[in-house]
Amino acid sequence: MSDHGILAVVSGFSGAGKGTLMRELLSRYGNYSLSISATTRQPREGEVHGREYFFVTEEEFLGMINENKLIEHTRYVNHYYGTPSEYVFRQMEAGRDVILEIEIQGALNIREKFPDALLLFVAPPSIEELRRRLTGRGTEGPEVIEARLKRAVEEAGGMEQYDYLLINDDLDRCVEEMHQLIQAQHRRVSNNRAFIRRIQDELNRI
Amino acid sequence: MSDHGILAVVSGFSGAGKGTLMRELLSRYGNYSLSISATTRQPREGEVHGREYFFVTEEEFLGMINENKLIEHTRYVNHYYGTPSEYVFRQMEAGRDVILEIEIQGALNIREKFPDALLLFVAPPSIEELRRRLTGRGTEGPEVIEARLKRAVEEAGGMEQYDYLLINDDLDRCVEEMHQLIQAQHRRVSNNRAFIRRIQDELNRI
Repeated sequence: MSDHGILAVVSGFSGAGKGTLMRELLSRYGNYSLSISATTRQPREGEVHGREYFFVTEEEFLGMINENKLIEHTRYVNHYYGTPSEYVFRQMEAGRDVILEIEIQGALNIREKFPDALLLFVAPPSIEELRRRLTGRGTEGPEVIEARLKRAVEEAGGMEQYDYLLINDDLDRCVEEMHQLIQAQHRRVSNNRAFIRRIQDELNRI
Repeated sequence: MSDHGILAVVSGFSGAGKGTLMRELLSRYGNYSLSISATTRQPREGEVHGREYFFVTEEEFLGMINENKLIEHTRYVNHYYGTPSEYVFRQMEAGRDVILEIEIQGALNIREKFPDALLLFVAPPSIEELRRRLTGRGTEGPEVIEARLKRAVEEAGGMEQYDYLLINDDLDRCVEEMHQLIQAQHRRVSNNRAFIRRIQDELNRI
């Protein structure tokens, strides 16, 4: 059908429920590959190298930049974050849809390099709800929650740069909407150049 | 949810099955309004004024142009075709999704005036299949069929200008895909400016 897999970027405020959404999407549908970022920050409790992130040293990370092994990278709060390109390209060529869960600066870098990438922003139904969810986790103190809300202020400034907005007020519906938005991308004219060429050739032979 | 109804343009080769698709889409889902074009051509047998077209004189048509009552208009084989704006705008403001089934030149005119309009192109799975469908109608002679195929050659040159390509090899699936593509448009950031402003305001008050 379409020429190759889709590159979809998912961003959103911390607490908007991206993690749960991604897990649910991947468990329901078989065609998605989640890209794993490389980072120089320390693993948090429970995080596994090669699952949440590839945890690398700053030297290793700078090496990846120099060898052009990252699609995009950004520096955020003294740490580097980046998307290793090999995995992403291999999956897309195999026809699989690849999801990058990254911050806004990374998303905009992707957009610049890959104009066909699909940029999705996941938002809570309201900021009050966002605060409730952040508080409800119970794992973080009030200063961390305030820091996350402050960060959300910055990120909100970039919402207009995305293609689609998903409001995560109902997990089940939000997963289906995300799936449909990514699948719709296979129907984009820019992803069907081979078919279009074939049709044009057939018509020219009439 | 989104700020207003969607403006969707559907084009495609004669014989690609647009008419059946539209009828089926409108019978399955209640949120669509099909725009009716005005034309100066004569009604064919079975066509009803106000259903297939508004049949008007050339003088009336030129009056509509002068009074700015058409969103777009084109001239094709000695006849004018145009989209009356009042109906379209009224439906969209009421939150209804409006579909214009028009030719490529009209579609490109719409795109220029309304960058947020969704442009869908319906294609048959192959040109052989297109020829079979045109022949199978049994209502037209071989010269008419050849004329339609020649016309398809022209139209194929514009396929790349559309947003999405729908391959009509299975009516049921094609209707669902069209529905999902139009509904996805409600999630576009450009259709959710009110929500985004509210979220940004709430965050700025923190």
